[in-house]
Amino acid sequence: MHTVDTMLEAHPQGPGAADRATLADCIRACLECAQACTACADACLAEEMVADLVRCIRSDLDCADICTATAAVLSRQTATGADVTRALLEACAQACSTCGAECESHASMHDHCRVCAEACRRCEAACRALLAAAG
Amino acid sequence: MHTVDTMLEAHPQGPGAADRATLADCIRACLECAQACTACADACLAEEMVADLVRCIRSDLDCADICTATAAVLSRQTATGADVTRALLEACAQACSTCGAECESHASMHDHCRVCAEACRRCEAACRALLAAAG
Amino acid sequence: MHTVDTMLEAHPQGPGAADRATLADCIRACLECAQACTACADACLAEEMVADLVRCIRSDLDCADICTATAAVLSRQTATGADVTRALLEACAQACSTCGAECESHASMHDHCRVCAEACRRCEAACRALLAAAG
Amino acid sequence: MHTVDTMLEAHPQGPGAADRATLADCIRACLECAQACTACADACLAEEMVADLVRCIRSDLDCADICTATAAVLSRQTATGADVTRALLEACAQACSTCGAECESHASMHDHCRVCAEACRRCEAACRALLAAAG
Repeated sequence: MHTVDTMLEAHPQGPGAADRATLADCIRACLECAQACTACADACLAEEMVADLVRCIRSDLDCADICTATAAVLSRQTATGADVTRALLEACAQACSTCGAECESHASMHDHCRVCAEACRRCEAACRALLAAAG
Repeated sequence: MHTVDTMLEAHPQGPGAADRATLADCIRACLECAQACTACADACLAEEMVADLVRCIRSDLDCADICTATAAVLSRQTATGADVTRALLEACAQACSTCGAECESHASMHDHCRVCAEACRRCEAACRALLAAAG
Repeated sequence: MHTVDTMLEAHPQGPGAADRATLADCIRACLECAQACTACADACLAEEMVADLVRCIRSDLDCADICTATAAVLSRQTATGADVTRALLEACAQACSTCGAECESHASMHDHCRVCAEACRRCEAACRALLAAAG
Repeated sequence: MHTVDTMLEAHPQGPGAADRATLADCIRACLECAQACTACADACLAEEMVADLVRCIRSDLDCADICTATAAVLSRQTATGADVTRALLEACAQACSTCGAECESHASMHDHCRVCAEACRRCEAACRALLAAAG
């Protein structure tokens, strides 16, 4: 996904090189987390013990929806509204935190939950890093 | 969109009748606002003065993405995470506020901006009503 | 959701009144179906017999994603690509047909499946009506 | 985005190693193309000559919506409906073809269109490869 960086560089009003890396990392982390959560919800559905994974599936689905929206909003650099971005990053960090904790609790039994928990943790950290960089 | 109410009633663990109306109103307002924002961004693109509507298109696109995600998260009633819902409602209210103000400033010139601003205002109010009801 | 019609009327290059009704109906049917499918997948998760509803949840999730994308694409009237619209309407009709049949098979046991099946059938018919109108 | 492969491997009923690579490539190509199209539409908005890029923005927005839905549907491996997948892959290939051709026509003037056209071409090829593999 080097395309994320290239597209930021090619934007007529894109961020400087310093801010670009933090932003690109966060976009990539959101896309990766959205995909992992979608796949984890689906893998949970295929487990025999699906009834024990209902809370996990629910938090996966929410996290996927919010990460997808966040990746799209962050991919826009024209006339950015700082208040909207900040509030959405807070919501995304919260969704990743909730989903990461839920998936972690099943990590020893299901590899898809372990991998998904890691993607959630990375995405939460990337959202918080971008919030910190924005000041 | 009476289906929104019917689906909430049909949920095995759905909310009581008192809370159901506020929730259903917010889901409908998010869907209506997402559609209006998508259509407004597109109508702005077709205006001769598109260069003056860049900020409007940008806020429309963000608002559509966030309202779509919010409608989906609110449509789920199983194992709801209150922190995630609250943070997302805050982000949605902020996106609607920003987009509503921007569209309102073009309302006298473009009917699509006027109608979209009203949808944004209704959705912001519905998000704030749901936040207040959740306490 | 009268806003759907109003936004089509307000578009500088929108369709004539004759085509507008068929298009607006299809946009509304897609939004309603996406919401019903999201809610049905979530209600299935809350059923004790969730393990018997895995196929239903899967088809609900796919149908919701495809209907959401279709509502967005149909809401745009500027520089429309007929080939893209047609292919997406075919995919949406197929997703609604598959999901409608699956939900129908649980309709006698679960009210959310019954209501969702009806939304799928309406949306499939609306997509096919729009395909027929486009010739 | 190695997570895409890891999640497919971790699925209790996932595809065999032979089919996994083609599927993972297509999921990654859809995510990359959706992000590039979102960023290209936004970069076009920031160009002084935005009025000449209206068709490009429109095809970018459609392509982003369809690629996002396709990435989600392909990320699910439980109880897959072959007809839905096939119809959606056809729609995605068509959207990428239309958007790739449009972006290519601006590639010499705008680097974001050049990079986006390449992402569209890769994604169209990945969809067609997956359609061919499915027989």
